Amino acid sequence: MNAFLTHGGRLDEACTRFGGDPGDWLDLSTGINPCPWPGAETIRADWRALPDVRALRQLEEAAAAHFGADPALCCAVPGSEAGLRALGRILDLPARHVPLTYGTYAQAFAPARQGHAGPSALIVTNPNNPDGRLYPREDLVFTLGRQQQAVGWLIADEAFADCHPEASVADLVANGRNLAVTRSFGKFFGLAGVRLGFVLAPEALLREIRQLQGDWPVCAAALAFGAEAYGDAHWIAQTQAALPERAARLDAVLARHGLRPTGTCPLFRLATAPDAADLFASLARAQILTRPFADYPRLLRFGLPANDAELARLDAALASWPAGG
Amino acid sequence: MNAFLTHGGRLDEACTRFGGDPGDWLDLSTGINPCPWPGAETIRADWRALPDVRALRQLEEAAAAHFGADPALCCAVPGSEAGLRALGRILDLPARHVPLTYGTYAQAFAPARQGHAGPSALIVTNPNNPDGRLYPREDLVFTLGRQQQAVGWLIADEAFADCHPEASVADLVANGRNLAVTRSFGKFFGLAGVRLGFVLAPEALLREIRQLQGDWPVCAAALAFGAEAYGDAHWIAQTQAALPERAARLDAVLARHGLRPTGTCPLFRLATAPDAADLFASLARAQILTRPFADYPRLLRFGLPANDAELARLDAALASWPAGG
Repeated sequence: MNAFLTHGGRLDEACTRFGGDPGDWLDLSTGINPCPWPGAETIRADWRALPDVRALRQLEEAAAAHFGADPALCCAVPGSEAGLRALGRILDLPARHVPLTYGTYAQAFAPARQGHAGPSALIVTNPNNPDGRLYPREDLVFTLGRQQQAVGWLIADEAFADCHPEASVADLVANGRNLAVTRSFGKFFGLAGVRLGFVLAPEALLREIRQLQGDWPVCAAALAFGAEAYGDAHWIAQTQAALPERAARLDAVLARHGLRPTGTCPLFRLATAPDAADLFASLARAQILTRPFADYPRLLRFGLPANDAELARLDAALASWPAGG
Repeated sequence: MNAFLTHGGRLDEACTRFGGDPGDWLDLSTGINPCPWPGAETIRADWRALPDVRALRQLEEAAAAHFGADPALCCAVPGSEAGLRALGRILDLPARHVPLTYGTYAQAFAPARQGHAGPSALIVTNPNNPDGRLYPREDLVFTLGRQQQAVGWLIADEAFADCHPEASVADLVANGRNLAVTRSFGKFFGLAGVRLGFVLAPEALLREIRQLQGDWPVCAAALAFGAEAYGDAHWIAQTQAALPERAARLDAVLARHGLRPTGTCPLFRLATAPDAADLFASLARAQILTRPFADYPRLLRFGLPANDAELARLDAALASWPAGG
């Protein structure tokens, strides 16, 4: 089950291991909004030409407006993970992060050794993945002060922050401040295949990121969808309201089967089970893919079902789980 | 005219400076095949899910087969420029390249100082951009031997090499050999907006590139189009035959107006004119965009017209160029 412990979304591997075609599966293994922004269905990208430099700038401005950030300090990247890895490479600082966190940081940043005293990059994922914990903005402001004092950096990974604008520190990114924020387009807008994210950072750091990735960092579809999606205030507000409602219904189903869901991020829920590996396999046999974690055998993350039918399917599968009682 | 001196494809800037809508312009400022692989019109990418890890592997294998390279040493990147910049960052060596070359390398690699004696990265673009010069494979093999001896690297940028498989050194990439090759999908297949390229390099170097860019380096469209396009032997053979024929017709038109075209790369031609800036402006007033070069005021690069009508339009515009006589 190694492939499932690295990332969500390994439906290919799930089909090989447990049978069925991708279409048969209910994929709850990621934190991607299952009800995507509908514009992507009708907008056709122009694949022939190189992405337009002005359109890229317009996208960065539209995204910065959504984040409440300075548009001059917003740089599009091919996915927030690519942004984090670029930051890791450029800052080249030993990193610290809260213990229960997603595996990617270890590959983007070298971990700080025990007793490390020099400057470090502190990575805070807000809300955190996989436990959905939301840190208040004040905590991050306080932490930023300490990092700045120690000539280190605070990296706020806000890939899942679109439903929590009040907790975001995107507006605090400024020249001379050792704060970088990463944001994701694909998760909230449900279009992860576009590979679009943003780094908000001081000018000197952004210059290095732009130099590393060149003049056409994102594909024509990212330009075709992105600016319009970030400008769709109606869909954004509706989705910010709908996702927590849907997450509450997921919570009720999980709780009914003795799983204790945690977290405030409506795009996923982390549940505690006596034997999560057994539950993972039981659900996989019903062709429902969830997200287990290598170092936490009692934890299983559930992405959001798209509708009541999907939720009912999960409910039924949990009911037949023998260890559920 | 600064924007036009950095890259081709600045139609947005051209409209602002010389008028018209993008649709009015004949864009001959890039080296992108104007007759794209037709599959992109019908294949719809799935934007919702994260790009599939196995599909990425299949794409890398299909591309490696087209390059004649070891599939284990082939890594997809979001455009060949992104690949070059990643190589520059990771190898971190002072670079040398032939004088008349494209501007990107200066941003990807720090130039070697005069008299530099230590290891260097030698970048050879083959065929070269913008002069279309094709170096025989033997020259590169000889140069590789020298670089390897000096503990340096040879970077062969084969972004325009699809019509010249006999000159490619992609098959020579191997573990223990200081050779990296970059390839482009968008130029030959005419789909630059997809942002897809490849780095062929020894395992240790590829590992660092994969680590820098993360697990989803290219968008869903790159996966949806790429493997099928590289497997379309019929279209590839037809295009390898058609592009040189079309370039020969462009040569005849340029020569008729006193411009001496050079180069063997059929995706563009470099022409010499007494005052290329004047010719650039004259063509731009006829809404034909070409590619001037900052340090070479007598040079102008012409991309390939898509058909006889576009070629006739260029012919007519050149005929009314006053300095043409």
